[in-house]
Amino acid sequence: MGSGIARNLLRAGHQLTVYNRTREKAEALVAEGARVANSPAEAVRGAEAVHTMLSDDAAVREVVFGRDGFAATMGRDAVHISHSTISTALARELAAAGHGYLSATVFGRPEAAEAKKLVVVTAGPPDQVARFRPLLDAIGRQTVVAGTEPWQANAIKLCGNFMIASMLEAFGEAYALMRKAHIDPHAFLEAMNGLFASPVYANYGAMIADEKFEPAGFALKLGLKDMRLALAAAEECSAPMPMTSVVHDRFLSAAANGQGEMDWSSIARVAARGAGL
Amino acid sequence: MGSGIARNLLRAGHQLTVYNRTREKAEALVAEGARVANSPAEAVRGAEAVHTMLSDDAAVREVVFGRDGFAATMGRDAVHISHSTISTALARELAAAGHGYLSATVFGRPEAAEAKKLVVVTAGPPDQVARFRPLLDAIGRQTVVAGTEPWQANAIKLCGNFMIASMLEAFGEAYALMRKAHIDPHAFLEAMNGLFASPVYANYGAMIADEKFEPAGFALKLGLKDMRLALAAAEECSAPMPMTSVVHDRFLSAAANGQGEMDWSSIARVAARGAGL
Amino acid sequence: MGSGIARNLLRAGHQLTVYNRTREKAEALVAEGARVANSPAEAVRGAEAVHTMLSDDAAVREVVFGRDGFAATMGRDAVHISHSTISTALARELAAAGHGYLSATVFGRPEAAEAKKLVVVTAGPPDQVARFRPLLDAIGRQTVVAGTEPWQANAIKLCGNFMIASMLEAFGEAYALMRKAHIDPHAFLEAMNGLFASPVYANYGAMIADEKFEPAGFALKLGLKDMRLALAAAEECSAPMPMTSVVHDRFLSAAANGQGEMDWSSIARVAARGAGL
Amino acid sequence: MGSGIARNLLRAGHQLTVYNRTREKAEALVAEGARVANSPAEAVRGAEAVHTMLSDDAAVREVVFGRDGFAATMGRDAVHISHSTISTALARELAAAGHGYLSATVFGRPEAAEAKKLVVVTAGPPDQVARFRPLLDAIGRQTVVAGTEPWQANAIKLCGNFMIASMLEAFGEAYALMRKAHIDPHAFLEAMNGLFASPVYANYGAMIADEKFEPAGFALKLGLKDMRLALAAAEECSAPMPMTSVVHDRFLSAAANGQGEMDWSSIARVAARGAGL
Repeated sequence: MGSGIARNLLRAGHQLTVYNRTREKAEALVAEGARVANSPAEAVRGAEAVHTMLSDDAAVREVVFGRDGFAATMGRDAVHISHSTISTALARELAAAGHGYLSATVFGRPEAAEAKKLVVVTAGPPDQVARFRPLLDAIGRQTVVAGTEPWQANAIKLCGNFMIASMLEAFGEAYALMRKAHIDPHAFLEAMNGLFASPVYANYGAMIADEKFEPAGFALKLGLKDMRLALAAAEECSAPMPMTSVVHDRFLSAAANGQGEMDWSSIARVAARGAGL
Repeated sequence: MGSGIARNLLRAGHQLTVYNRTREKAEALVAEGARVANSPAEAVRGAEAVHTMLSDDAAVREVVFGRDGFAATMGRDAVHISHSTISTALARELAAAGHGYLSATVFGRPEAAEAKKLVVVTAGPPDQVARFRPLLDAIGRQTVVAGTEPWQANAIKLCGNFMIASMLEAFGEAYALMRKAHIDPHAFLEAMNGLFASPVYANYGAMIADEKFEPAGFALKLGLKDMRLALAAAEECSAPMPMTSVVHDRFLSAAANGQGEMDWSSIARVAARGAGL
Repeated sequence: MGSGIARNLLRAGHQLTVYNRTREKAEALVAEGARVANSPAEAVRGAEAVHTMLSDDAAVREVVFGRDGFAATMGRDAVHISHSTISTALARELAAAGHGYLSATVFGRPEAAEAKKLVVVTAGPPDQVARFRPLLDAIGRQTVVAGTEPWQANAIKLCGNFMIASMLEAFGEAYALMRKAHIDPHAFLEAMNGLFASPVYANYGAMIADEKFEPAGFALKLGLKDMRLALAAAEECSAPMPMTSVVHDRFLSAAANGQGEMDWSSIARVAARGAGL
Repeated sequence: MGSGIARNLLRAGHQLTVYNRTREKAEALVAEGARVANSPAEAVRGAEAVHTMLSDDAAVREVVFGRDGFAATMGRDAVHISHSTISTALARELAAAGHGYLSATVFGRPEAAEAKKLVVVTAGPPDQVARFRPLLDAIGRQTVVAGTEPWQANAIKLCGNFMIASMLEAFGEAYALMRKAHIDPHAFLEAMNGLFASPVYANYGAMIADEKFEPAGFALKLGLKDMRLALAAAEECSAPMPMTSVVHDRFLSAAANGQGEMDWSSIARVAARGAGL
């Protein structure tokens, strides 16, 4: 995801210094004008905006507060723009950490990031949102402002992933019934495509019907993590989400049965196993 | 729904005799060439195909097997084409009742029926499906063949309604969190429209965000009935559907709290109440 | 169950004519004073009270309304006392069938029936409950009067079985965690016995810890049936029971995985499989 | 809870220094031979064993690692014996904190603690369990050894609380049905007492039937916390617990509706509200 975002920032004419643990990934951007840094701490020197795109809370924590983290080297006026899918709790912590902070979560696969087709959901102090809006518009096709507290954007991202995940589980349950009823899941999918007319349904519905879960577009273990974070946000807000709990438990069962590295759409296998398939 | 279907059959050049308990509804079709019958038994005389579109199992049972039902008056070669959302069990019973029978369930609202935009899902003996295919193509924009057993089309219809209902519940849970988090549900919806790009999401997402549940496009008590029938099909096939159970129980809670006649999207109120809203 | 009940009625000094599809089971009671009939219809002639103890709705329906059923041969003043675990809907149907009817459901295993240790839950018109109370007291150690409508006793029986079943599922989930945590389930059971001090916990807790599910004391497929009937009663009364739904779906998964004839405590295997065990 | 435990340690002849944030609570034990300390740090000086009984992770963390915490003042050979219901994660952290550590969780209400009737579940290195076993036997009627890793005792405690909580929810669902069916919940309870013969069922079943939720014996917000910790343990072990999730979400709904300080048995109100009661 990160390189797509970086590429679009470069295309929009911004100066960019990049860092990745795997240095080759960073160097791939040199041809397009990026400079490569040796550490997060080094990458942010002199920057106005610091974008991060990482896999989970621990990785963000390390890059910000860790030994070579950038917390200490960021400029006084610089703002950290976090694109990662992290907990609302960490977003609040980052917002309180002493420099500017915006959450700017993104929906879309790596291809969408490359193609500047992400849906960006941001939240934070209105003046900072206004100031950095051009950066957000540069990386996606649509920018949604969720509110004035950064963690609100993270709540939307987590719930959005729940919306997709519940669709995956719904397909899983329906297909399990179809298969036990000797109905080709593709017939069901054809009807659903007629009904929902959504590329997300078409794409995932086909993956599950074809049981093609590798290579993973989005690893199931990350989906599990996101459901855990969505439920944590729900608990913070005292808003029970029983269907989210079902989806979470199904991801956990999938992980317990060795599917952590498969695509998260393989949650459908849990329903299939439950039906004796 | 029935009048839209009837109108498109007339437009396709078929001769049609119509019956409705509320005679005016039937008579509204006279101007377009329909004849009106006084009873189901009378309506089917001489017909090659008998279409039914009714609200539930009991209504279908009455029209077929009841006092003025058409079971006795249907021609030997005539085929009953059932568009209603009924149980798989009743579909099997109708298929075993002695004359030809096809299930031809439909997805779409009354406006879609009028506009010949239904998605039709049919199942039955291949020769009969082939024979009556033109009738099905005349009433929708897409015809999906589910299998050779009529009840298979009913299984697809029930699971399709579950797909929509689970989306409604997902919106309900997410919006409850949004509201507790002081985020405008419309911001969440904007992101979901960017993500799913589905008219079904756009339509229901807006209804729930606006809490506009009356008048009902599809009554919640019918959604409850459909989830019950989906779970009954799941039990027949030994295919557990835990998320469907959650959705069913939420509809039941909505009905217990006086929402039976509201639109089924008002299931979202259950999540709201559960969050103390 | 039936023979234990019959034996205690004989011991209490009542005259008894017995019928069982498997004639030897009936004849085993001759030595204790019972007469054997060739059909349900014959068995009830001249009887004041007609006890039935059968496995499900279909069996009760057959014995009452079937070809050799007793509906037609029961005396005008006779009362049908149904001990079976049947649906509330069938109880209402039996109560409306034209002769006296009491539901008198029972909790306890066959050994408890033999030992006159059943818990009997009855409901029906107060005068009939009073009249036949001695028969109920003769077969159990405790008689609970649930209300004046027979089906109310069936609602209690179904919910009582749910209470046990939810305990089984709770053990299943806890033991799965124990095993993944390298804790001996017997240590957990020891603590639970200290805590609950209930023979039901001790008994089932040990069966599940030992994974000894055969022979079945109570077949899982019957537990599944009872959860279905409990949920049907819940729907009739508009009282959502989400935990009951979870238990139902777990039994269904167990049945789909070949455990229908095992003891219902084998529901614990569903949690184990879900955890990758 | 703490004072009952302290009293039984004194009765068994042990020397005891006590600390409580509310000094009067500590001083109440002086008459029985306890000395009172001004801080946790002071309380542990010279002690062989340090018992803690606190409400949650944060409180334990404060008392151990906080400003006046005892981590720095504990003797080299001293062992921390934690009776609190805390997360398995914190138990692991405490075990790794540099001095001896045993988890010794307890089941029972304050009255049971006073009466030396607790069920104690301990885990830790076998030599330390053996060394401190007399202290554990002094405070309860039964000591269960869960394993060699302290957190295993916490896993048992959390799952034990889930066993109770799932019983509470089961009563709640059953009673809601009873009330909608015009059956007195006490009739259902009478049958359950006949069936389970457990004081826990008798006690909680009556509280819920009488809807007597204040004053709280155990606050609902603590029950919610325990279900969260049980689910966290389940996730650590990859052992999905879907019924636990239901119970968790019901507690969360209760808390969202203002029941956090009521007894946890008031979870039954969630089922009642869901049924429109």
